[in-house]
Amino acid sequence: ERQGYPEVVFGEGKTVYQIIEIIKVLKARHRRILATRISPEKAAAIQKEVENLVYNETARTLFWKNAEEQTILYQGYVAVVSAGTSDLRVAEEAAVTVEAMGCEAVRICDVGVAGIHRLLDNLEIIRNATVSVVVAGMEGALPSAVGGLVSHPVIAVPTSVGYGANFGGLSALLSMINSCASGISVVNIDNGFGGGYNAALIHRMANEKRGEQQ
Amino acid sequence: ERQGYPEVVFGEGKTVYQIIEIIKVLKARHRRILATRISPEKAAAIQKEVENLVYNETARTLFWKNAEEQTILYQGYVAVVSAGTSDLRVAEEAAVTVEAMGCEAVRICDVGVAGIHRLLDNLEIIRNATVSVVVAGMEGALPSAVGGLVSHPVIAVPTSVGYGANFGGLSALLSMINSCASGISVVNIDNGFGGGYNAALIHRMANEKRGEQQ
Amino acid sequence: ERQGYPEVVFGEGKTVYQIIEIIKVLKARHRRILATRISPEKAAAIQKEVENLVYNETARTLFWKNAEEQTILYQGYVAVVSAGTSDLRVAEEAAVTVEAMGCEAVRICDVGVAGIHRLLDNLEIIRNATVSVVVAGMEGALPSAVGGLVSHPVIAVPTSVGYGANFGGLSALLSMINSCASGISVVNIDNGFGGGYNAALIHRMANEKRGEQQ
Amino acid sequence: ERQGYPEVVFGEGKTVYQIIEIIKVLKARHRRILATRISPEKAAAIQKEVENLVYNETARTLFWKNAEEQTILYQGYVAVVSAGTSDLRVAEEAAVTVEAMGCEAVRICDVGVAGIHRLLDNLEIIRNATVSVVVAGMEGALPSAVGGLVSHPVIAVPTSVGYGANFGGLSALLSMINSCASGISVVNIDNGFGGGYNAALIHRMANEKRGEQQ
Amino acid sequence: ERQGYPEVVFGEGKTVYQIIEIIKVLKARHRRILATRISPEKAAAIQKEVENLVYNETARTLFWKNAEEQTILYQGYVAVVSAGTSDLRVAEEAAVTVEAMGCEAVRICDVGVAGIHRLLDNLEIIRNATVSVVVAGMEGALPSAVGGLVSHPVIAVPTSVGYGANFGGLSALLSMINSCASGISVVNIDNGFGGGYNAALIHRMANEKRGEQQ
Amino acid sequence: ERQGYPEVVFGEGKTVYQIIEIIKVLKARHRRILATRISPEKAAAIQKEVENLVYNETARTLFWKNAEEQTILYQGYVAVVSAGTSDLRVAEEAAVTVEAMGCEAVRICDVGVAGIHRLLDNLEIIRNATVSVVVAGMEGALPSAVGGLVSHPVIAVPTSVGYGANFGGLSALLSMINSCASGISVVNIDNGFGGGYNAALIHRMANEKRGEQQ
Amino acid sequence: ERQGYPEVVFGEGKTVYQIIEIIKVLKARHRRILATRISPEKAAAIQKEVENLVYNETARTLFWKNAEEQTILYQGYVAVVSAGTSDLRVAEEAAVTVEAMGCEAVRICDVGVAGIHRLLDNLEIIRNATVSVVVAGMEGALPSAVGGLVSHPVIAVPTSVGYGANFGGLSALLSMINSCASGISVVNIDNGFGGGYNAALIHRMANEKRGEQQ
Amino acid sequence: ERQGYPEVVFGEGKTVYQIIEIIKVLKARHRRILATRISPEKAAAIQKEVENLVYNETARTLFWKNAEEQTILYQGYVAVVSAGTSDLRVAEEAAVTVEAMGCEAVRICDVGVAGIHRLLDNLEIIRNATVSVVVAGMEGALPSAVGGLVSHPVIAVPTSVGYGANFGGLSALLSMINSCASGISVVNIDNGFGGGYNAALIHRMANEKRGEQQ
Ligand SMILES: Nc1ncnc2c1ncn2[C@@H]1O[C@H](COP(=O)(O)O)[C@@H](O)[C@H]1O
Ligand SMILES: Nc1ncnc2c1ncn2[C@@H]1O[C@H](COP(=O)(O)O)[C@@H](O)[C@H]1O
Ligand SMILES: Nc1ncnc2c1ncn2[C@@H]1O[C@H](COP(=O)(O)O)[C@@H](O)[C@H]1O
Ligand SMILES: Nc1ncnc2c1ncn2[C@@H]1O[C@H](COP(=O)(O)O)[C@@H](O)[C@H]1O
Ligand SMILES: [Mg+2]
Ligand SMILES: [Mg+2]
Ligand SMILES: [Mg+2]
Ligand SMILES: [Mg+2]
Ligand SMILES: [Mg+2]
Ligand SMILES: [Mg+2]
Ligand SMILES: [Mg+2]
Ligand SMILES: [Mg+2]
Repeated sequence: ERQGYPEVVFGEGKTVYQIIEIIKVLKARHRRILATRISPEKAAAIQKEVENLVYNETARTLFWKNAEEQTILYQGYVAVVSAGTSDLRVAEEAAVTVEAMGCEAVRICDVGVAGIHRLLDNLEIIRNATVSVVVAGMEGALPSAVGGLVSHPVIAVPTSVGYGANFGGLSALLSMINSCASGISVVNIDNGFGGGYNAALIHRMANEKRGEQQ
Repeated sequence: ERQGYPEVVFGEGKTVYQIIEIIKVLKARHRRILATRISPEKAAAIQKEVENLVYNETARTLFWKNAEEQTILYQGYVAVVSAGTSDLRVAEEAAVTVEAMGCEAVRICDVGVAGIHRLLDNLEIIRNATVSVVVAGMEGALPSAVGGLVSHPVIAVPTSVGYGANFGGLSALLSMINSCASGISVVNIDNGFGGGYNAALIHRMANEKRGEQQ
Repeated sequence: ERQGYPEVVFGEGKTVYQIIEIIKVLKARHRRILATRISPEKAAAIQKEVENLVYNETARTLFWKNAEEQTILYQGYVAVVSAGTSDLRVAEEAAVTVEAMGCEAVRICDVGVAGIHRLLDNLEIIRNATVSVVVAGMEGALPSAVGGLVSHPVIAVPTSVGYGANFGGLSALLSMINSCASGISVVNIDNGFGGGYNAALIHRMANEKRGEQQ
Repeated sequence: ERQGYPEVVFGEGKTVYQIIEIIKVLKARHRRILATRISPEKAAAIQKEVENLVYNETARTLFWKNAEEQTILYQGYVAVVSAGTSDLRVAEEAAVTVEAMGCEAVRICDVGVAGIHRLLDNLEIIRNATVSVVVAGMEGALPSAVGGLVSHPVIAVPTSVGYGANFGGLSALLSMINSCASGISVVNIDNGFGGGYNAALIHRMANEKRGEQQ
Repeated sequence: ERQGYPEVVFGEGKTVYQIIEIIKVLKARHRRILATRISPEKAAAIQKEVENLVYNETARTLFWKNAEEQTILYQGYVAVVSAGTSDLRVAEEAAVTVEAMGCEAVRICDVGVAGIHRLLDNLEIIRNATVSVVVAGMEGALPSAVGGLVSHPVIAVPTSVGYGANFGGLSALLSMINSCASGISVVNIDNGFGGGYNAALIHRMANEKRGEQQ
Repeated sequence: ERQGYPEVVFGEGKTVYQIIEIIKVLKARHRRILATRISPEKAAAIQKEVENLVYNETARTLFWKNAEEQTILYQGYVAVVSAGTSDLRVAEEAAVTVEAMGCEAVRICDVGVAGIHRLLDNLEIIRNATVSVVVAGMEGALPSAVGGLVSHPVIAVPTSVGYGANFGGLSALLSMINSCASGISVVNIDNGFGGGYNAALIHRMANEKRGEQQ
Repeated sequence: ERQGYPEVVFGEGKTVYQIIEIIKVLKARHRRILATRISPEKAAAIQKEVENLVYNETARTLFWKNAEEQTILYQGYVAVVSAGTSDLRVAEEAAVTVEAMGCEAVRICDVGVAGIHRLLDNLEIIRNATVSVVVAGMEGALPSAVGGLVSHPVIAVPTSVGYGANFGGLSALLSMINSCASGISVVNIDNGFGGGYNAALIHRMANEKRGEQQ
Repeated sequence: ERQGYPEVVFGEGKTVYQIIEIIKVLKARHRRILATRISPEKAAAIQKEVENLVYNETARTLFWKNAEEQTILYQGYVAVVSAGTSDLRVAEEAAVTVEAMGCEAVRICDVGVAGIHRLLDNLEIIRNATVSVVVAGMEGALPSAVGGLVSHPVIAVPTSVGYGANFGGLSALLSMINSCASGISVVNIDNGFGGGYNAALIHRMANEKRGEQQ
């Protein structure tokens, strides 16, 4: 229906067989397919049956697109900012989702509030994005810090990374929801897909508007 | 710094005297000022000292703009959708914030999941917005329902309305954060301001892009 | 004692041996036996020792009835509505329980608030039921949407499906308990049995009344 | 639309003026109107403007019905069982709602698990109902005890009565949701209206079925 | 120091080797030793090295006493009442602890609020105890029901048995703490040892007093 | 029924008129009456209508006994230990309850874990009691410390005193429930009545046993 | 006992009369007295009876010292950093406590993560302190940001400022406890006194060590 | 940058290969390296590739220092106090961290509030430290007891040891945060590293000051 949007398959809890069947059906009618939450073992088994699937091991995603379909459809880029090494898998899910929607993603990793200078060093590249996805677990304040430095919308993604009183990401989620910087909104814990999807929606919308005008 | 943005004063916990002083200082340097969380009594006292302040009793906001400043600066509109009568004050705070940022807000009230036909009746007007703010307390599922019907971004605002096991809005917040419709992100409980601000940011961004192109 | 009611065995935490012994004793005195929470391995072992047990792999239930006992004892049907693929096992436990109590269950799967049209497409079949069981995890609002569309009682069953801030089903439970549609009541997380039992109780009661009148 | 059902007004947070306007409009089109959560002061002010409103001080409800409308439309009765003195206001809201829907309510008060004999003394009258509403705060186990003694459906209503670790009724709610007696479902804390509405829905349904048959 | 009291070893997290060493040392100085939370495998390995240890598989305890030491030192008995099959392991830990302290324990199993008549059938034997330990998971109300029927002290032990909204026993714990029957106090979730210890302390105290008088 | 026990009236939420009526009825049939949670204003009004009521302002209790009834019926005493000044009202409710049941209460105030020497200074008097009630809010560890120093049963009463992360006494309650000293059981937050009642029950039981022997 | 330390009175819940009595007794034996949580009304009444008490209206503290006692006893200073206007009362309680312990406090206000440049502008003055107290409610990440910029110990004080999902400061507390910058430890919500006391303890200790060496 | 400070590697979630690479890089530029959360298997594999790494099995840490680097750089010592056997691994992580920072750690184990005399027996050695780290799970009150006995700063480390209502250490954390002894601050659950780091920071600071003076 909505042109250029990938069909998305949530892989968690689906068998290899089920995913293969779904992808086969979708290929007939769609130009882009993204499957998330796919373990390496499942990915290998699926790739044996379906051609041209690209697996991203960090993001644990499979992506397919029609050979004629152009990878990047829109100008500018989305910044995907993450705090720690262990937040990378969620950040990568966000970045892959952004790309699956035909938008460019620029990854800025390992920046955090506890070492604010690394964030400031990357400020120009973040400011020049149209929208940022900020992914963090123990650094619940990162979206707030980024939000204070940029004037574009920030999508915050809390992760379940941490131990002790982090309560599976709840601490980061609350931190982000209470953020006092304006221009920040939040998606579910570990929902890199949702973060990337929202960001791409905003990025595309800006471009599509422009398109309509011509 | 950022042109056309209102300066915002968070009125909660500030005295009448403090708010008057802040507004006076801001008027010298800014073209739009928005003060939120202002009780009717406070508003009356402030309006005696500062001219041209518009009070919105439902939203509990005061707004001032320079006489030369145009009210609406951007084309299109933001949809502000709300569920129950008691969600209105938060929805209105969102709508007023959208307007304070020079964007048009179209209010769609009293639509809810429990009476899905009223929502469907308003579908065209919601779909034609660039972005929706969806405000709900007991109807935590409303953003999910709206998100499934539109392809633009949805900012969800949980409210503390309800009783019993709603736990001051936590139930609505969790419901929205867990939403399985893509394209939804969430702000703090009762944070109409944040919902409106995020929506206007997206709405403006689209328009500004267009402007840059010319 | 209560005629036509199955004897129910809660399989969780019981050994194969214990379940076999219990079923053997019950067969002597009852005409219907339902055992829930039985893994495929346990089921296979039990079926070797007890004849005429029907295993439902999705619901993870074993059912036995006396050869002379009629399957369906009552007119009309109970609607068992579920949201996502992963809610199916709980929905099936509900449906099997409805059937074990001599009532007909009509399954309506894969309908959700985020894609409200699929729900509306199935409206007639849901409306014609005497009572609905609505099973959902990430779609905590589904019972509310169904409740707004039908005038019969709705039994809501939250599931533990989801991730991040769903907290093992608590988010769905709170959503359902706070529902603003009238005519909805809630059972424990993942308690498909309880949902089906309540629904069948209501369905039977209506029919029994009718019976008494004759 | 649905014949014989009262139109219901949730009074909390509405002004006297708003409630009067709503009731006036409803009277033109409906035969029964129930308003809940009405303080004595509000009730007095509303009664001055609208004739034939009956106020129930314990339930804090206003009820109006068309002069020609018969009070009780269905045979049999709903049992409304409550534990402590302070649970009475919620139990009464349930009973009044049952009556507003044209069903008879029989009140059984001051029975509790901690004094099980008083419950057993009232067993016959509870057993002869078609459905029970069981209201309790500190006695979270009461629905479980009733459910074990009757074979009809039980609607459990937790109340916020208690202190210390009752957490505004959460303790009672959890207790009831975890109940191991079958045939129990739960509504929101202090939601006497919901308890009564569900019970009446079941009670009516049984009777309506019978009606259809003739 | 305190005569006749067992030395207690908390086995959880201790290696077989550590437990053997501890028991060897204790045997030199004590007449009774109780080790709790011992898996069958650990028990077998320990019994190979230490003589005269009695293993209770349900309670998962090892008990040793000096050959000359009399098993039961006090008159009367403690009632250990439990609700479901899965509560048995905690109830047995309580009973074994009572016995390790030289008191007689009478077990009353499978009585619950949802089937109140089985409780009433056992009333005489419970009433004749000096103190009751009441163990329950899904039946959080059982101590309350027992407390209302007896006039001696009741020690309530919540268990983590259950699923869904029982939150690892928290629901049962809150239910018991909020109990409105007087004469009930509560120990930690699954703490059968604590329940038995408290009960035996009270039972012994009564007997010791008597002894002093002579 | 149970001789020598006071009839107890829970004053919270009852009107002056209701309490007077209840006390009048109880006086005819009982020898001791205790009313808890009575504000000074209510107490004054009640005392005007009923003779010989003793009001304890700290405990907020009213007590009446038949003129012939002896105050103290049992030998020995219960220790009522409390931590801070603000825990006194709960400790006093416990002490008054102990006395209302014909037992002597010895108060040990202002001892706490943070100043362990004051506790050690009072050790002899605590050790010589038959049972201790330990009342504490911010000092959740006090029952644990007392329990380690005495060999009699300890009833722990958490209080809602404190601020910040004490969550209305939940922190103290959890601390006490997790206590690693044996011989401790816990009642509800602020339930001085329950603490005193349990202690007196144990104290009396010991004495009654002795009586039976004669 | 400990020289130079103020005696501290926690004013919450104490009457004017009680506080006056306590201060009078303490003056005889101590050289410094600090009373916290004193409302302006209470302060005025107390000052009428006791001479030389200094009231700090923001901190809500009363301070007295012996005329001969020197105000500042130690070299260097403690930095008291706070985020928002509404965090000021807690920050001031911390600063006053630092001063009451004979240490200098330098206040740095209105710096926050959402406007990181104001924090960086004040970096030198914070870095030159021996220890920092960082006070924040909605800006739970502030201690983390400060901790990453300094190498001395940071005492974090969460405040209950905020609304919606801040849950009375719990969100800020969790944020701080999970902080990934090393060198941060946390005290109770709104516990400015505890933050100041810990900081002064560290500041003094450093100086005292130096003193001992001479 | 900061001389004498170890570089710290958080091992959790890193592969053996990653840790080896990181350590190799760090060795070129640093004189002390500490890696935490390293399982015995990982440690063995890493030690094969990197020389002079010391593994502490209880603390699960790897430590390396330049051959010329002196082990202890500062006078005096830090007391590391722990309650139960199962708290040892966290206490040891604290002690190893203290040592990695060039400070001496004195371990005082198996002291607890429930057996207060063992704590008192070790009082002199604790009092003579400059700062204490107090580690406890079920004994949440231990820091409070220690804090009342010493006048130096206390860093409290809650552990996740326990069962039932300890909720993964939350109970201990709340207990410590609410502690009413002054001079206590808290780090995350199981964060032995943070406890040791804070303590060493304070210990070093005192010594460094002294050094500066010379
Ligand atoms: N990683 C993810 N997290 C949350 N939602 C997802 C994720 N991946 C896919 N989805 C959603 O799941 C839907 C597909 O679910 P399904 O039909 O069960 O495969 C998509 O339309 C997305 O909205
Ligand atoms: N209703 C509101 N809810 C949340 N944040 C707000 C609200 N109104 C204003 N703010 C924020 O508060 C800031 C001003 O705070 P202040 O300087 O304390 O007046 C603004 O820049 C906004 O980011
Ligand atoms: N199952 C149990 N639950 C709680 N506490 C126990 C249990 N078993 C033993 N204990 C306590 O643990 C102490 C012994 O602990 P330990 O020295 O670690 O073996 C005993 O004195 C008891 O107080
Ligand atoms: N302060 C109290 N806290 C808890 N329960 C109490 C208290 N005072 C009285 N009760 C209980 O409340 C019962 C009387 O309740 P009521 O009939 O409502 O007056 C008594 O039998 C006691 O069990
Ligand atoms: Mg910004
Ligand atoms: Mg959408
Ligand atoms: Mg309906
Ligand atoms: Mg039943
Ligand atoms: Mg009793
Ligand atoms: Mg003891
Ligand atoms: Mg630092
Ligand atoms: Mg101290």
